[in-house]
Amino acid sequence: MGKEGKVLGGYTKKILRVNLSLGKIWVEEENDEFLKKYGGGYGTAGRILYDEVPPWVEPFDPENRLIFTTGPVTGTITQTAGRFTTVCKSPLSGYFGDSSCGGFWGPELKLAGYDMIVFHGRAPKPVYLWVNNEQVEIRDASAYWGMDARKVDRALKSDLGDKKIQVACIGPAGENLVRFAAVMHDEAGRAAGRLGTGAIMGHKQLKAIAVRGNKPVPVAEPDRLKELMKEISKHYAKHEEVTSFRRGGTPSYFASGWEIGDTNSYNFADENWGEYDPKAISWPGNFDKVLVGNRTCYVCAVACRRISGAGEGEYKLDEGNVEGLEYENMTMLGSNCGITDIYALNKINDLCNLYGIDTISAGGTIAFAMECYERGIISKEDTDGIDLRFGNADAEIEILRKITYREGFGNILAEGTRRAAGIIGNGAMKYAIQIKGVELAAHDPRAFQGGGPHYACTITGGRHTEGITVIWEPFKIPYPEIGIYGGLDPQTTEGKGRLAKLLEDWWCFINVGGWCLFSSDILRYIGKMTNYTDAFSAVTGLKYTVEDAMKLGERVFNLRKAFNMRHGCTREEDTLPERLLKEPNKRAGNSVVKLDETLPEYYRERGWDPNKSLPTREKLRELGLNDIADDLWGK
Amino acid sequence: MGKEGKVLGGYTKKILRVNLSLGKIWVEEENDEFLKKYGGGYGTAGRILYDEVPPWVEPFDPENRLIFTTGPVTGTITQTAGRFTTVCKSPLSGYFGDSSCGGFWGPELKLAGYDMIVFHGRAPKPVYLWVNNEQVEIRDASAYWGMDARKVDRALKSDLGDKKIQVACIGPAGENLVRFAAVMHDEAGRAAGRLGTGAIMGHKQLKAIAVRGNKPVPVAEPDRLKELMKEISKHYAKHEEVTSFRRGGTPSYFASGWEIGDTNSYNFADENWGEYDPKAISWPGNFDKVLVGNRTCYVCAVACRRISGAGEGEYKLDEGNVEGLEYENMTMLGSNCGITDIYALNKINDLCNLYGIDTISAGGTIAFAMECYERGIISKEDTDGIDLRFGNADAEIEILRKITYREGFGNILAEGTRRAAGIIGNGAMKYAIQIKGVELAAHDPRAFQGGGPHYACTITGGRHTEGITVIWEPFKIPYPEIGIYGGLDPQTTEGKGRLAKLLEDWWCFINVGGWCLFSSDILRYIGKMTNYTDAFSAVTGLKYTVEDAMKLGERVFNLRKAFNMRHGCTREEDTLPERLLKEPNKRAGNSVVKLDETLPEYYRERGWDPNKSLPTREKLRELGLNDIADDLWGK
Repeated sequence: MGKEGKVLGGYTKKILRVNLSLGKIWVEEENDEFLKKYGGGYGTAGRILYDEVPPWVEPFDPENRLIFTTGPVTGTITQTAGRFTTVCKSPLSGYFGDSSCGGFWGPELKLAGYDMIVFHGRAPKPVYLWVNNEQVEIRDASAYWGMDARKVDRALKSDLGDKKIQVACIGPAGENLVRFAAVMHDEAGRAAGRLGTGAIMGHKQLKAIAVRGNKPVPVAEPDRLKELMKEISKHYAKHEEVTSFRRGGTPSYFASGWEIGDTNSYNFADENWGEYDPKAISWPGNFDKVLVGNRTCYVCAVACRRISGAGEGEYKLDEGNVEGLEYENMTMLGSNCGITDIYALNKINDLCNLYGIDTISAGGTIAFAMECYERGIISKEDTDGIDLRFGNADAEIEILRKITYREGFGNILAEGTRRAAGIIGNGAMKYAIQIKGVELAAHDPRAFQGGGPHYACTITGGRHTEGITVIWEPFKIPYPEIGIYGGLDPQTTEGKGRLAKLLEDWWCFINVGGWCLFSSDILRYIGKMTNYTDAFSAVTGLKYTVEDAMKLGERVFNLRKAFNMRHGCTREEDTLPERLLKEPNKRAGNSVVKLDETLPEYYRERGWDPNKSLPTREKLRELGLNDIADDLWGK
Repeated sequence: MGKEGKVLGGYTKKILRVNLSLGKIWVEEENDEFLKKYGGGYGTAGRILYDEVPPWVEPFDPENRLIFTTGPVTGTITQTAGRFTTVCKSPLSGYFGDSSCGGFWGPELKLAGYDMIVFHGRAPKPVYLWVNNEQVEIRDASAYWGMDARKVDRALKSDLGDKKIQVACIGPAGENLVRFAAVMHDEAGRAAGRLGTGAIMGHKQLKAIAVRGNKPVPVAEPDRLKELMKEISKHYAKHEEVTSFRRGGTPSYFASGWEIGDTNSYNFADENWGEYDPKAISWPGNFDKVLVGNRTCYVCAVACRRISGAGEGEYKLDEGNVEGLEYENMTMLGSNCGITDIYALNKINDLCNLYGIDTISAGGTIAFAMECYERGIISKEDTDGIDLRFGNADAEIEILRKITYREGFGNILAEGTRRAAGIIGNGAMKYAIQIKGVELAAHDPRAFQGGGPHYACTITGGRHTEGITVIWEPFKIPYPEIGIYGGLDPQTTEGKGRLAKLLEDWWCFINVGGWCLFSSDILRYIGKMTNYTDAFSAVTGLKYTVEDAMKLGERVFNLRKAFNMRHGCTREEDTLPERLLKEPNKRAGNSVVKLDETLPEYYRERGWDPNKSLPTREKLRELGLNDIADDLWGK
C-alpha cells in the first residue's frame, strides 16, 4: 500500500455520524491504518458498509446505511478533485450500491472538516441536515418536501442566507422511493444518479444535506502538489484533445460511438425497429440548437459540463441556462427510446433532473416498456392509455411523470426493469436490458469483447464507470505502465478478461482517490498514470507507485465484490441480457458478446473460483482481507 | 417418499395465482411428482418461494411472493386438519418466513378447489380477494382499510351476505408494515402470527381474503380414513390427557413450565428484576377470572381454544366471549413484561388480536425496550414520555398502540427487536432476545439442552414450532418408532443434537401434512407416530412409513434451510442471545445453554458443513435436491 511518509494527509480523519431515528449526531475519529488500507471513497465507506450492514438488512431498512464520502484528493488543488460518492445497499440491485457526483459538494464537506457522513436509521418525518463546520443540525424539512431538485437547492441557499452553501438533495422521485432515484446537486445540475441511492435518501426521509465549510484540507506535501498541478494545468491549457472535449463535452462521443456500434438505440436493438437517424440529436449538428455553453466543476481546467438553453416550441423549458444533455442522457433517454426531436429530448432530460431520477435507468426502463408495448406483451390497457411506442416523446414525458409519482403503470416501472419484467411476466424478461438489476449504460459490449466479462462481473451491474474497456479496445489508448500498448482488436477474445481486470482495478483507484473519471480520459493525452500516483503521494504522504495504486484498486474491488456475495449474489448473476449474447449488432460487425470465451480468463485473472464467482481465500488473504476470507469461506 | 397408490389424493392439484400489480388471476395445475416430492404446505410453497424469489428480492418488494397454502390432510375428516400456512420472504428475519394458523380458513380454501394461493406484485390501492369456488375477484377494499381484524372479518361476512365465509385478514399493524404483524382469521380469534407475514399482506395492500367453497376434497382411500378417524376419536373422547387439555388448554402449561424454568419472565432474566409471582396469571387460579369457555377449530375433538369474558374494571374489554389468552400470549405479553394483573393482560392480548400483531414478538420487543429503559439505555425522552418500566400495563398498552400506528418510539419498535437494538445502539443488542431477527417464543432453552442447537439452527429464528425438544427432555414423552424411549436428562448434552434433528424432521412432516402441532402432543397419548403416517397414506394413497415421513420432513427442512443460505444467512447466525449462553437460569438448576457442546453433533447429524452451516452437496443429493446442491456449492 505504498511506503509511508511522516504525516497522513488528504484526510480530515473525521466521520460525521447521524442517527436519524433518534436525532443523534456524533463525530468518530478515523484510524490511520484503516484509511491507508481502504484509501477513502467507496473503499473506506465500503468497509463500513460491509461491517455494519449484514445480509438481512434490506435497502429500505432503517438499519441500511447511507454514506456520503470523499476521497483523499477531494477538496485539494488536485485537478478534477470535485467528487463525492454515495454508498448504501442498493434498492435497485440489492447488492453494493454506489454512485459518484461532480460539482462542489464533496470539496465543501471536506472543507467543513469531514471525510464522510454516515446516516443511520430513518427520520420520523422529513428532515434535512445542515452542516456548517462543527455546527451540525437535523432540521425540519416539511416545507421542502415535494419540491423539485432545483427548487429545494435554491430555497435552502436562500433560507440559510448563503449562496455559497452546497446542497445535495432529492426530488420527488427519491421521496417516492423510485428505485432509480438520484441524489442531485448544484441546482439539479449534477447527479449521483445510479443504483437508486436517492431512494435510500427518500426512505430515510432526508430531503437534503446543506454544507458550508472553510477549513483547509491537510496535504502532506503541499509544495510538491502545487508543482505537479502547475505542470498538468500547463498541458491542459493548450492540448487540442482537452480543448476539443471542452467544446464538445461527452456528446461529442455520440457520433463515433454510433459508428462503431457502441452507442445504442431502440432498447439495444436498432435493426428491429427501423433506421434511427443519429444525426437528429448528434453533436455537432442539431444538438447545437440546445447547447448554449459549458460550465466547470471544482478545480477542473476542462469544464465539460453542457449548458442548455430553454429551446423552443412545445418542449420549451421553463427556464434556460440549465444543465444540458450529456452523452449518456441523449443516448438512453433519446436514441434508446427512438427519440429524434432534440427539443423534446432536452425537455425530457431536464425533467429527469428536476424529478431527481437517474437518466440511464429511466431511459433503460422506458425503452424496455416501449419494446414490450410494441411486441404486444403489454397493451394500452396496462399503460393507462399511453401509446408507449418507440419515438413517442409525449408518451415518454407522461410515463416519466407517472414513474416519479408512482401512478398507475408508472408504479410498476418505478421498480426498475428487472422487477417490472418479473411483475409483467409473459416473456418480458427477455427484453429487460439489465445486469444485476441495473439497466445498462449507453455502451454496447458487442462492440468490444472486453466489455463482456467486465459488464458481467461489475459490482454494480449495468455500469460504465467501473472500468469499461471501450477506451482500450476500439479507441486503443496506451497505458504502457501496466503493459497496455494500444492496437487491440475489439473483436478478439484472448486477453480480454485480463484487460477488464486491469482497468477495473485502475478505475477503482481513481474512484477511491476522488478524481473525476473523465480525467483519466484527458490526462492520458499528457501521458502517464504516474500523474495520479504522484498527486496521491503528494496529498497523502504515502509514496505510491502505479503498482501500489493497482493493488489498492484490487483490494477495494474485491471488498465490494465480497459484499455482493455475502448478500446473496451468485455466479448466475455474472451474465448479460440474452439480446447481447445472441442478437448480432450490425454496426459492430454483426458481433455478439462471446462471454463463454472471455469469462474463464477473467475469473482466472481475478483469482475468483470459476464455479462460484467467489474470490478465493488465497486472493482475499493476499489483499489483506483475511477476516472477509473467513466470512466467505468459513473459518 | 412412500410407495405409490393409484390415485394421488389429498390435493386439489390447483394453485390460484393472483398478480396484484396487474389485477390478473389464473389457475395453475400442479404436477403429481412435485406434490409427492415436497408434500404440500411449506414444502411445495417453499419450493415455489425458492424458485421464484431470488436473493435480491426484498421482503417489501412486489416481487416477493405471499403464499397461503394447505397440506394434503387439510379439509379432510382427519383430526386437527384445520390449518393453513403463510409463506414469504420474512420482513422480520430477511430469510424464509412461514406461519401457521388454525380455525376454518384452510379447509375452506381446499373446499373452494385450491391447494394454495400465490400472490405476486403489489396492488396499486387497497384490495381484498374474494374466492367463491371458481369465481375469483380482486375487489376494492378502501372501505375496509383501517379496520381492526375483528371488524373487517364481520364486515366482509355481512357485505358478502354469507356467514359461512372464512376470512383471513390484517389489522392496522399489517397495513402499517409492522415487521411482526400477523395474518388474522376467525374474527381476530386465530393468527398466523409469526415472521411478519401480515406485514407482507399489508405491503401488497391486500386487506383480506374471503373464501367460500363447497367441493369435496379428493381422498385416495376414504373408507380407510373413516375407520382410522373413528378409532382415534374413540380414544380422544375418553382419554384423561385429552379432556384435561380441553379444560386447561395451553395456559395449563404455564405452572409446570415455570417450575422447570422453561417459562420466562422479565425479558428472560427474572432474577435481575425481583420475584415475579406466576400465580397471579396462572391457570387454575386468577386466570379463571377471564376464562369463560372453549372453542374448536375445524375437525378437532380437543377444542383447546380459550374464550375470554370482557373482564372488569379499567381494563374491561368492549365485548366478551372473544378469543382468550394462550400460553404464549400470557407469558410473552405477561410475565416476560412483568405484568401481574390478569385483566390488564386480557386487554393487552385482545388489543394484539384487534391490531393484528404477533403476541410473541410484540411481548419480546416490549420486554426488550423495558429492560433498556430500566437500565438507562433509553430514557423517557426517547420513549415519548412513557414510563416503560417492567410491570407497567398502561405503558404496555400505550406502546402497543404506538407500534401499531408507527408513532414516535413505536416506529422504532415496529422494526422488531434486532433492528430496534441496532438503531438504539449504546449496548442495547445485549438485551435483544432474538434469533435471526425473530423474538424467542416462551421456551427457555437453558431448561433443556436440546433446545440449544435447535433454537440456534431453526429456519425461522426464535420459534417454538419447528421441533422444540422440551417435549422430549423434561417431559420425557416416548417416540419409540424413532428410538426415543423417554427418560432423558434435560441437562446432559450428548445426543441432544440428534434429538433436535429428529423432532425437527418429524414436526416438519406434521406441518407439511396440515395437522395442528398440538395433536402431536395429544395423539402421543394414544401412542403412535403411525397414526399420522396411516392417515397420510389413506388421504394421499401413498404408502407412507414413519421413515418416509421423516425423510419428507428432512427434505423440506433442508429446502427451507437452503433458502436461508441463498439469502445471505451464515454460520454466525446459528447462535443464541448472549443472556442464554452466559446468565444462569436459577429455576432450571442454574444452567446456561451449552451450545458449544451440542452444536457440532447437530451439524454432524444434519449433514451440514460445520464451518458454514451449509447442507453438504452429498446430503442435498441424498434428499433429491440436486439442483439446489448446485446452487449452493457451484456446478
